[in-house]
This record gives sequence, C-alpha cells and structure tokens, in this order.
Amino acid sequence: MEYVEDFKWEKGMSTKDFVNKLGRIGYQSVELQRAAVAMAKMKREGAKIFLTFTSNMVTSGLRGYFAQIIEKGIAQVCVTTVGGIEEDIMKADGEKFMLGSFHSDDYENHEKGLNRIGNVMVDNQSYMKLEDKLLPILAKLYEIKPRWTPSEIFREIGLMLNDESSILYQAAKKDVPIFCPAITDGAFGFHLYLFQQNHPDFVVDVVKDFEKIVLCTDHNEKKAVICLGGSISKHHAILATLLNGGAEYAVYMTTAKSSSGSLSGATTQEAKSWGKIKDDTDAVTVHGDVSILFPLAMTLTMEILDEEGLLE
Amino acid sequence: MEYVEDFKWEKGMSTKDFVNKLGRIGYQSVELQRAAVAMAKMKREGAKIFLTFTSNMVTSGLRGYFAQIIEKGIAQVCVTTVGGIEEDIMKADGEKFMLGSFHSDDYENHEKGLNRIGNVMVDNQSYMKLEDKLLPILAKLYEIKPRWTPSEIFREIGLMLNDESSILYQAAKKDVPIFCPAITDGAFGFHLYLFQQNHPDFVVDVVKDFEKIVLCTDHNEKKAVICLGGSISKHHAILATLLNGGAEYAVYMTTAKSSSGSLSGATTQEAKSWGKIKDDTDAVTVHGDVSILFPLAMTLTMEILDEEGLLE
Amino acid sequence: MEYVEDFKWEKGMSTKDFVNKLGRIGYQSVELQRAAVAMAKMKREGAKIFLTFTSNMVTSGLRGYFAQIIEKGIAQVCVTTVGGIEEDIMKADGEKFMLGSFHSDDYENHEKGLNRIGNVMVDNQSYMKLEDKLLPILAKLYEIKPRWTPSEIFREIGLMLNDESSILYQAAKKDVPIFCPAITDGAFGFHLYLFQQNHPDFVVDVVKDFEKIVLCTDHNEKKAVICLGGSISKHHAILATLLNGGAEYAVYMTTAKSSSGSLSGATTQEAKSWGKIKDDTDAVTVHGDVSILFPLAMTLTMEILDEEGLLE
Amino acid sequence: MEYVEDFKWEKGMSTKDFVNKLGRIGYQSVELQRAAVAMAKMKREGAKIFLTFTSNMVTSGLRGYFAQIIEKGIAQVCVTTVGGIEEDIMKADGEKFMLGSFHSDDYENHEKGLNRIGNVMVDNQSYMKLEDKLLPILAKLYEIKPRWTPSEIFREIGLMLNDESSILYQAAKKDVPIFCPAITDGAFGFHLYLFQQNHPDFVVDVVKDFEKIVLCTDHNEKKAVICLGGSISKHHAILATLLNGGAEYAVYMTTAKSSSGSLSGATTQEAKSWGKIKDDTDAVTVHGDVSILFPLAMTLTMEILDEEGLLE
Repeated sequence: MEYVEDFKWEKGMSTKDFVNKLGRIGYQSVELQRAAVAMAKMKREGAKIFLTFTSNMVTSGLRGYFAQIIEKGIAQVCVTTVGGIEEDIMKADGEKFMLGSFHSDDYENHEKGLNRIGNVMVDNQSYMKLEDKLLPILAKLYEIKPRWTPSEIFREIGLMLNDESSILYQAAKKDVPIFCPAITDGAFGFHLYLFQQNHPDFVVDVVKDFEKIVLCTDHNEKKAVICLGGSISKHHAILATLLNGGAEYAVYMTTAKSSSGSLSGATTQEAKSWGKIKDDTDAVTVHGDVSILFPLAMTLTMEILDEEGLLE
Repeated sequence: MEYVEDFKWEKGMSTKDFVNKLGRIGYQSVELQRAAVAMAKMKREGAKIFLTFTSNMVTSGLRGYFAQIIEKGIAQVCVTTVGGIEEDIMKADGEKFMLGSFHSDDYENHEKGLNRIGNVMVDNQSYMKLEDKLLPILAKLYEIKPRWTPSEIFREIGLMLNDESSILYQAAKKDVPIFCPAITDGAFGFHLYLFQQNHPDFVVDVVKDFEKIVLCTDHNEKKAVICLGGSISKHHAILATLLNGGAEYAVYMTTAKSSSGSLSGATTQEAKSWGKIKDDTDAVTVHGDVSILFPLAMTLTMEILDEEGLLE
Repeated sequence: MEYVEDFKWEKGMSTKDFVNKLGRIGYQSVELQRAAVAMAKMKREGAKIFLTFTSNMVTSGLRGYFAQIIEKGIAQVCVTTVGGIEEDIMKADGEKFMLGSFHSDDYENHEKGLNRIGNVMVDNQSYMKLEDKLLPILAKLYEIKPRWTPSEIFREIGLMLNDESSILYQAAKKDVPIFCPAITDGAFGFHLYLFQQNHPDFVVDVVKDFEKIVLCTDHNEKKAVICLGGSISKHHAILATLLNGGAEYAVYMTTAKSSSGSLSGATTQEAKSWGKIKDDTDAVTVHGDVSILFPLAMTLTMEILDEEGLLE
Repeated sequence: MEYVEDFKWEKGMSTKDFVNKLGRIGYQSVELQRAAVAMAKMKREGAKIFLTFTSNMVTSGLRGYFAQIIEKGIAQVCVTTVGGIEEDIMKADGEKFMLGSFHSDDYENHEKGLNRIGNVMVDNQSYMKLEDKLLPILAKLYEIKPRWTPSEIFREIGLMLNDESSILYQAAKKDVPIFCPAITDGAFGFHLYLFQQNHPDFVVDVVKDFEKIVLCTDHNEKKAVICLGGSISKHHAILATLLNGGAEYAVYMTTAKSSSGSLSGATTQEAKSWGKIKDDTDAVTVHGDVSILFPLAMTLTMEILDEEGLLE
C-alpha cells in the first residue's frame, strides 16, 4: 500500500524527481507517474510500441519530441492524421509557427492570413510553400510506380528531408512506418487530387497499408499502445493490435470523456476487455492536455530507460 | 434584447414548445434553441448542407434519424467514419444492439463476446455476419470494375439494402454522397484487405473521392455544415467547404473542449475566420452529448420546416 | 434486455414521448430517461427528496421551475448557494435578466454596468436595488430576535414575497426549508455585514441550521437526493442524508468530471458505497448541461407523477 | 512574437528548465508557463495574494505544498472549504491517506470502512479520531468566549498543532487568515453542532468573518487571486477583491468548463471585466488537473522568486 505524501518544492529539483513526487500526490498526478512507469516497462519487456498522435500535436512543439522518441527507439510504429504529416514537412522546410492567444480576434486573424489552432498561429504562406514542395515529390514517386501506399509515400519524403527534428526523417532512418488511414483529409489530399488530374492512373492504395499495419506485428509478439488524444489514430492502432490478439500494455492521454461513447474518450478500463492486460499497472489513462502530460511523463520514462541502457 | 423567462412545466407540452422555452432559460439551453433555428435557416436559404457524424452515433439510435433527415432532404452531403457504415449495414441486416451500463464489468463482457461502446453492447456475432455480407458485395463490384471510391461503394451497397431506416439506403435513394476519408479504419478495412489478397488489382481510390467532395459544391452555392462530434468527419466537411470559399452557416455539437487545440473541440467562433459567416446567429456551438442535443434541436428544426412546407 | 431503437421524428411529438424515445438511443440520452424514471420512483415511494442547485441555475429560467417543483410537492428540502437566494428575490422584485453571448466583449460589458454569467447578463442596478430591499427586512427580523439561522431568514423573506415563480415564496408556503451553508458568500453577505456594524449582537447561526438539516429526516425515512451541478449544495445534501444512514435514491446531473477527485464531479457510482442503494436503476448520473438535461428529464417525471395522481 | 519550439528531452533536466520549455510547445503547456510567470510577478509587485483551493486538494499531497507556500510568504490570505481544514488537522495528527484506484469496487470499500475520493482512500477511523481531537479544542475556545469566527477558530487550532507541513500551523505562524465561508459543510459542522447542544450560547459568527475578509485589503493595495479549482473558495476570494476594486492579477486552474455559466468554470477572460487587469499576461487560465498543473507551475514560480531573493 502506498500513501499520499506531502509535496514540497526543493531548489533545483530535477524533472525526474518531480514526476516521482507527483506519484504520491493524488488524482491525475498519480496516474501520470504510473503512465511513465508503464511506458518504461513496455520498452523493457520488448513490446512493439504503437505511438499515436493527432495533427494539432505536430503543430505544437511536441513534433520534435516525437522525432526524438522514434530516434531513441521508443516507438516502432506511428499512426497519425495527415495534418501532422503536412506540418512536419513544413517545419523541416524552415517554416515557423507563432504562439498567440486562445482569445485573439478571428476576423482579424483572417485579414492577416493567419490560421489559429488554439493558441498557435500558422501563416497561410506556410501552406502555400507546401504545395511547391509536394508536387515535385509526387512527380518523382510517380516515375517509379503509379501505385503507392500512404506509409510508402511518407517514408520516401522522410528520406528526402534533412532535419533531425522531423518525424518523417527519423522514422525513415529507423524504419518506423507511419500510418495515416485518412491521407486525403488535409492539404495533402488536395495536392494528391491535383496530381491525379494529370496522371489518372496515379493511385494511393490505402487497403495495402491496412495489410502493412496488420502484418507489422503478430500474435506472439508483445504489443503496446501509447495513444495521445483520440481520433482515428487511436482507433487504428487499437484495431491493428486487436487483430493480432490485443496489446499487453496501454497508456492513453486525453481530454475526451467516456460519457459520449466515443472511442476518443474511452479509457484503458475498456482495454481490459481485450483479455491481454495482465496487471492493472500496465493500462493507465491520464486525463488532461497532452501538451503538458506527455512530455512530463515521457521525461521520467526516458530517464528510467537511459539508466537501464535501453535508449538507442 | 431577449430576457430570461421562468420555465414552467405544462401538461402534454409538445417537444416544439419545449425547445422554444429552452431558448429563454440560459446557458446551453439557449444555444440549443439557436442551433435549431440556424438549421432551419440553412435549409430555407437553400444552402448545401454537409452533415457529419461519428460512428458511435450510428451505433446508437441516431442512425435511423440520420436516415430520416436524408430522406426529408435536410442533408445533401454526409461525412462519417467507417464504423458507422458497418453498423448501418449490420442493422439493415437485422442485427440488434443492446442497452447496458457504462460500468459493466469489461472482463465479463469479453467472456460473453460483447463489445461495450459506452452503455451500448454489440455482439461479436454481428461483426462476423458482416463479413458474410460484405465479401459477396465486393465480388460483385469487382466484376464491374477494379477501382472504386469509398462513396461509390457505399452507394452501391445502399442500393442493395432494403431498410427505410438505413443511412446508406436513403442516401442512395436521394443521391446524397457519403464520404468516409478513412475507409480502412474498421472491420470494413479488414474485409477490403482480404479481398485484395485475391484480387491484387482491386483498389479503393480515396484521392478520387476527394475530388468528388471538393467538386460537389462551388463558390457560388451557399454552404452549411452541421458537425456532430469531432474527428475527421468534422474536419473533412469543413475542409471541403473552405476549398469552396467557406460555409455561410455552421452548427457544431460536441463534448470536446477547445483548450487542447484540436479541431474536434474547435467552436464556431473559429468559423468566423472563414469570412463568410455574416451573422452571429448563423454559427452556433452547443456543448454536450449529441445523443440528447441533436434529436432535441433537430425536432424543432423539422417542425419549423414542416410548417413552411420545406420537408421533402 | 432492452435494445437500441432508431429514433424518428414524428410531427407534434410530445415531450413525454420524446424523452421516452431518448431512452432507447444510447449514451447520455439513455441515462437521462433513466434519471426521469428514478425521480418519479423517489416520489412514488414516499422518499424525502433533497433538491440541490447552484446559483447560476437560479440566474437562468430554471428558477421558476424550481419554484414549481416545490409547489407540486416534488422537493421537500432544498440546498443552494447564496447567489441563488439573491437572484430569486431580485426576480420576485421585477428585475429582468438579459440573454446575451458567451463571447461578448467583457471590457464593454464592464463599461455598460453588465455582469456576464455565461450567456446571461445581469445589470448592476439589479444588485443595488437588492440592498434597498434587504436592509429593511433585516431590521424587521432583528426586532423579533437577534439570532437567526439562514433557513429561518429565507423563510421569512419568502413569506414577504408575492410571486408564484419565486423559490422562496413557494418554499415558505409549502414548509420546505432552504439551506445555504455559505450565506455570506455573495451580496447577501455584504448586507449582513453592513447590518451587523450597527447591531453588533445580530448573529447568523449556521451551526443551528446544521442541526436543522440533520434532524429534518431520520434513519427510518426513505431519502433521495437530486443534485444539479456540484459545489457545497451537493456536498451538504449528501452529508445530511449520510448522517441519517444514506439515501436510497440519487440522481446527479453535472458537467464536472470525476478525474480530479472533487465531489462536484463524483458520480452515483460512489453513492453505492453508502450501502443503501438497492438497485442500479435508483442511482443515475447524467453528464451535461443542467439547463437542458433537468427540464427535459423532469418533464417526463412530472408527466408520470401527474398520471399517477402524485402531483400536489 | 514568440515561436513554437521543438521540445527535446535532455538528461537530468531541471523542473525549471522543463517548465520554461513547456512555454514554447503550444496549447495548455504555454498557458501553464505563463501562469508561473504571472504568479512570480504578483509577488514581485507586492500584491496581496489570495490563494484558494478545495478540500480534495488537501486530501492530496498538495496539502504540504500549500503549507510551504504560506511559509515562504507567497500567499497572504487563504480561502478553502471545510473538508480541507479537517484533513489538515487529521494529517497533523499523524493520519495517513492511501493511494488506490479510480475504479476500485465501492461496495467493497464500504465494507472495509474506506472512503474513496478519486484514487485516494481515507479510513473512517481517521474521521473518528478527529472527533476526539476537536471537542476538547472547542471546549477550550468556549472558555475564552462564546462567539468565534471561523478564521479565529482555525488560527487557534493552528497554534496548537506541531507540524511544519500543516496549512493551519504555517498560517497561524505567518498571520495568514484562512477563510471558510461554509464551516458547517463537513464533519467539522457535525462537531460544532454537538458542542452547541450543550452550550446553546456558543455561536460561530460567519458575518464577522465576512467583515474580516473585506477589510483585510483595500482599494489602494495591489491584489491578486490564485484560484485552484472552483467552488465557493474561488467565488469568495473574487468577491472580496471585487469589493476592494478588483484584482490586478489572476491565475485560475480548473477542469470546469465555462459553458454551463458556473463561476467554477469561469476563465480569467471574465476577470477583465473587473477593470483592473492591465495586461493580458497578468490574467491566465490553465485547463486541467490541479494535482499536476499547480506543483509544476509553482515550481517555476518559486525558482524565479528564489533567484530574486523574494522567498521568505
């Protein structure tokens, strides 16, 4: 039995010590520390780790962290939405996003050509430059063959980028597939459509990518999911592991609520129905904003793995 | 200026009167009544209405209501996630889903072969029967041509169903396209994959469907979005209208919060940055569970439209 | 076993039929209908019903509904926060509150002397008139005795009002005590303080009111709580029933989440630990905005009770 | 203009560096870092700081942190609910609270005599010992005089405790008043009631405490509020500063939503209507669980104040 302990500030406290202290406060702080420990255990036990995130997280500074996590060998498979792919490329290309306010005037933002995503601002120009970048890439790929899966396209783009902080770059380098079941749901979709106008036999084969994600693991391999936010990214990773017998480890971080029956809000309680979770400590849900929860928990995870020599 | 009015129960009160009274209570009740009025205005003004919903809503009894709304000519375009397609077909095939508890034992559910989606239970058998149903359909389609878009597939299936309460059935009948940018993210994806194993040239062309949704309207046509829940359904409809200059009307209903920067939680405040919303009353966000909010608001909308002779 | 049923709009549908149909949709709609049935059962079984609400609900048009519910004999004890008392008096005095926007400019509101409570606006003038009203009342009470409990004060004020839609008026008429454990937390507190300056022996005896709420029921009587929102109102009613052995029935409606460990967000799952809930159907939590959920559910409750001749 | 920066883990990173990096990620992480800076500014500018928290936070390990914050001179006035007072005394008396699960069986907990508050468990024994402790204290106070305000009672108890981690102890030592407008809403209320049974002239004067909180500051003094969670604690501090012309600084941390019109969910946007906030950076709302957000932000605040020699 563990007991609540009074938290006290100590000058110069490390983040690792901080998160360990959180583990004795109560409520979500305790779940956060448990999530950090569960994420270290996944890696230690050799599970194949599926990391899922939504595009607004790639808009944020978590983008470089996802790249680092792939580089350090913590994630073996990624699933995301296509906006995240676009913004990773834009950033690798030198585009910068601005910090603003949740309450800025949206009419004014429109006049200035700014897109507001919460308190982050993206200039329309950044999207325009993406077009200049993507069309030649599609042309190059088409020269090789007319039929591509989304994960193949992302891998090729990753190989062309030159940015250590890029998700696509690190994923390509580490042979981590990036799945995106809705590749047309964004500017990327628009550019694919433009390209297909002039190359009618160009096709994006999403069914083949389903095969790839289903066959990227098997029933005998240990599996883990780290789901940040909800959306189809979360759903797709859970589906892929379920078709392989279910995951042994699951960490969810989300602001969504389970009361509406959406999978985005489903907690790891439900994960127990997969029949593979052996221990309550292997399935942890933390409620709150991923932009705080994830770097905080994962910092402890990385410190633990580093001490054990498990970071690549 | 409108004033708060004391709500009073009256014996036998109609739902229409009830929702109109809500409009004078305060907080979300007021926004709900405003949403109902905005949805009636969209139709009256001849806007092309994009209705988006997530699959958990099709799991619920809202499924038959979406079908009715299409039948009555209120929605001209639908966007959803693939789970909703699957369950619409399962229900059209006679499958029944059970009402249970948010707190039932998930280990026990697993033993009984029940999938829990909030307080709704779906028998694994229902998914198995879907396989028996889908594979022959895919074979038929393949005989016609090897390359299909998701919306084309759903239309063909709709034509084969015989259930007035089916979304696909009514959509096919009324020529309402159903878009689903992530067709592989569910059991449907698995069956497509199995089929492609034996028919390697079978391909689902999602890029072509992007063309279809972009070209289904234009800059001159008035446009409206009714977004229930978040997810890529919401994002995709907004994207399609934005590429055509933005929507004039927007109603969002969601439990998601805007504080995390996700589009699922974005409110219609943000919609003002599209530059087309002329009047605050044309863009309404209602916070809460769609399973209550939507039938309540839409009932008033339909009563208004019925009186005006605008229901088909 | 109950099954999900497709919801369909029917012209002129009554609110009663509507809510009964909600009971077959899924997610919160089902919980809402269950709550309505549980509230009817409480009354039918002769339980003493504690109704709790927060002051923002009295700001809204729910105020007249609470009065009607007391009049019809559905609530036997009320607990609220003091803002609700103030606004009930202001409204009984003819003050009107305006409907506005969640997004109106708060600097501008300040200039105009408007207080914004969500999308409801209260003129500062309304608060000033309250002072003119309260001070003579306190003087009258002081003539009788110098030591009063909050519930005694509210009862005396209720007897002086002449407004069928007033909570205090109906409560005084029906001998329903109104408890408010934090009587100083609002403008009321300020007026009590001003009065005490000139009458140092004037005292508000909150301890005595605790005796009153604890002794207003007993272990043998059946007890029920209907808690709208969280706050000390909810806590106080639960505490009073717990000291009498726990309630047999509980309905909570709230937007708060249980993840932070606050009682405001605690669900009726926790109520089971009181040891008196015999049946899952007697303890229901509905997540969402009370301004919609409560009038909707309570309308069905009142229709049921009316049919059974149980409304006073 | 500040830009989003990629977050990267660095071995041994201090919490201070971590929070500063959060300030460049986006969404709530940015607001959290802004809150930390605003809290340092309040102190630097010599504002009188009102710290408010709810009792579930005192149940948790934040209790010792609140004591430390008072000791270091960061809070000059506290407002809380009475459960927090009770648990501070219980802990000062050696009672320990256990860490458990949000999903433990509440029937079982009831059998074992455990009260579950989220994932924290409190033994019924701890409440019983409180009775043995409180009654003699009340007897002692009564010997001095029969009429006490809540803040006077808490101060006297604080002087009797001997625990550096106790809120009451540090507050008494530093002459920080603790206000609790609903002193009877908990076990404390029950003991006051028992005592009053035998000492009918014993009275708790809540009106006098309202005078004390209103007069503890004035229009000329700079004022600040740090509101953790909602409830009457938050409302009471805002009311007290408003009666003195409004606060210049405000930091809110909460899981509540503004959509229901409750003050618990009101953001610092609304605080601008007080007319005293000069700069957007002086009013910050962070959405999420206080058990994580507060220690994280306040750690940066304390590091800043420590460097500037502003900690006592």
